[in-house]
Amino acid sequence: MFSSEIFSRLERGAQVVLRKDAAAIIGFTGLQAGDRVVDAGAGSGFLSISLGSVVAPTGKVFSYEWKDDFFEIARKNVSRAGLEKVVEVKYEDVLEGIAEKDIDLVTLDLANSDKALAHAFAALKPKGYCVGILPNVEQAKRFTLEAEKLGFASCLTTEIIERRWLVREEGCRPETTGVLHTAFLTFARKPGQA
Amino acid sequence: MFSSEIFSRLERGAQVVLRKDAAAIIGFTGLQAGDRVVDAGAGSGFLSISLGSVVAPTGKVFSYEWKDDFFEIARKNVSRAGLEKVVEVKYEDVLEGIAEKDIDLVTLDLANSDKALAHAFAALKPKGYCVGILPNVEQAKRFTLEAEKLGFASCLTTEIIERRWLVREEGCRPETTGVLHTAFLTFARKPGQA
Amino acid sequence: MFSSEIFSRLERGAQVVLRKDAAAIIGFTGLQAGDRVVDAGAGSGFLSISLGSVVAPTGKVFSYEWKDDFFEIARKNVSRAGLEKVVEVKYEDVLEGIAEKDIDLVTLDLANSDKALAHAFAALKPKGYCVGILPNVEQAKRFTLEAEKLGFASCLTTEIIERRWLVREEGCRPETTGVLHTAFLTFARKPGQA
Amino acid sequence: MFSSEIFSRLERGAQVVLRKDAAAIIGFTGLQAGDRVVDAGAGSGFLSISLGSVVAPTGKVFSYEWKDDFFEIARKNVSRAGLEKVVEVKYEDVLEGIAEKDIDLVTLDLANSDKALAHAFAALKPKGYCVGILPNVEQAKRFTLEAEKLGFASCLTTEIIERRWLVREEGCRPETTGVLHTAFLTFARKPGQA
Repeated sequence: MFSSEIFSRLERGAQVVLRKDAAAIIGFTGLQAGDRVVDAGAGSGFLSISLGSVVAPTGKVFSYEWKDDFFEIARKNVSRAGLEKVVEVKYEDVLEGIAEKDIDLVTLDLANSDKALAHAFAALKPKGYCVGILPNVEQAKRFTLEAEKLGFASCLTTEIIERRWLVREEGCRPETTGVLHTAFLTFARKPGQA
Repeated sequence: MFSSEIFSRLERGAQVVLRKDAAAIIGFTGLQAGDRVVDAGAGSGFLSISLGSVVAPTGKVFSYEWKDDFFEIARKNVSRAGLEKVVEVKYEDVLEGIAEKDIDLVTLDLANSDKALAHAFAALKPKGYCVGILPNVEQAKRFTLEAEKLGFASCLTTEIIERRWLVREEGCRPETTGVLHTAFLTFARKPGQA
Repeated sequence: MFSSEIFSRLERGAQVVLRKDAAAIIGFTGLQAGDRVVDAGAGSGFLSISLGSVVAPTGKVFSYEWKDDFFEIARKNVSRAGLEKVVEVKYEDVLEGIAEKDIDLVTLDLANSDKALAHAFAALKPKGYCVGILPNVEQAKRFTLEAEKLGFASCLTTEIIERRWLVREEGCRPETTGVLHTAFLTFARKPGQA
Repeated sequence: MFSSEIFSRLERGAQVVLRKDAAAIIGFTGLQAGDRVVDAGAGSGFLSISLGSVVAPTGKVFSYEWKDDFFEIARKNVSRAGLEKVVEVKYEDVLEGIAEKDIDLVTLDLANSDKALAHAFAALKPKGYCVGILPNVEQAKRFTLEAEKLGFASCLTTEIIERRWLVREEGCRPETTGVLHTAFLTFARKPGQA
């Protein structure tokens, strides 16, 4: 098992993808060992590390980041997580293209993720997924409309809301305050025979 | 990638664990290839198959089911999913004990899952997780209090609420009706050095 | 008290405003006896009746509806609810103007509610509210941007999600399925001294 | 209209009932001018003031509070809200009985609200409501089971979740963090002919 404590030892240089969303991306796409993933932008590398822990030891995550500081943080974090052989942090802008082919999953967490969809489509295997992590409704809409135009076979937008509970001898109830929203997740799937 | 279409070809003989909950179990525990899992009861085998797809090819899921009809359905479904070498469906009652040792994850989806916690504790590796899938609040409470008594180091109860969206040129909004509740998930973790 | 059974005796000719949303409109605006309300479009008249029950006996609801069939249903329903003296159903299109002045609350439940905001602004008292009942995010956005342009002092958009519970000796949990979304509510408030 | 600004000028000596819950109580019960209400305990008086604004000018709220400091705060707040003629704050413990009869609505916000249900039943008119404001599931369960034993005709437990949105030209999304839980609301209704 990949220890969740690892994440508490990592540096946070950007808004990180929460584990509820990482879990949905992993679980809904059926990610498994040996899969090949492109993750962009890497940010602090949290999502790349989560995905890397699942595709290890035989799979690969190509993690794109063009901002100097995030690139350094992501690299350091991947190394602390012991995943240097699985997650390759690339100092590149995904909007300029994806070099890899036969990719199972592309995750996009950019202000304009829809602009990277054509590159994702080209890089993906048949039946592969491109998942947008999209804070605003407008981004989910642009992402979906662009994916449909490019020929993605299906598009599902969903929100994962986590509600933690206080479970105590003296009484059970949801926590009083907490996270209400992180991002909409749009799952676009490439057509074809897997 | 493990194709989500596989699930649509499986037989449903019992209330199945939804993918939002399976995803959270996979993602929150850090499950990965090579891990050893006990899943009880198997029901139709959906959760065993999800977990099996992640721990494959080197890991193992031991799937306990003592009801004749579910046992047969689970076996058939595991076979249809092509996971016979990873998921072993056992015709046994987990309340009578867990034969395996050095387990990374035990998932319990029984009416009285708290009664299996002592067996789970014994079977788990240090830092391993026992996750209860618990429809009622009372079950989550009994599970938590029993886990604390047995010496589990931490207990977190959470709910995953999925809200799908209609994303269309003419307007975006959440779907009108849908699933409001499946189960509370309680994550109990065994103490120790991983 | 205004009996909730009354609603079960009314005819439903259109999507009705749910009581969770009617309750929020009443409670968040501080509606009370004697207040003057414009409600458009009336639809089946459910919201007009809810609002009428609160402003009665001294207040008034002017309920606009330009579609023949809804106009008739709304009138019949208001009469069955015993509120003919409080709720006046008008066979008129609110987009062509609001005849009344010194209004405390305008509620708009139209496909293009933002087009009626200028009329609402003119009809409202200082500190009065115009509330949009808006199924899609885009409608809430157009409504908000138009309200800000027109000089409304504040705009709050909110969603009311109701989750019913099964509370039973044998176990408590939220209902399995149900309503996930009706509409966003945008509360625009006219500036001024109340 | 009853100005929501009034609440911002009141003193907060206890956890106050939020307006989403006050709104549901008002809207779901059909409260209106002239109704007679018992509210216990008063706490800072926020709920009494909300209810008072709806039953005014001809109705009445009897607000029970036996704790010295809350009693004083509630009285001061009722006076600041200009509702002295409608809301009567009584320095009494509702668990020792309700003096009033022919009550339309009793609201109970105590640690052990179920203990006041028999008094509420006796005080209520036929078809009147007793609403429990119950933070923990166990309280909602005790309240419901006791209400059923006492002969209340129906019991509905519900949760009102409010989700505020950021609606901006540059993008719309729910607020990032906020209130996840206040209380379960249980509506118990006395049988009879209204």
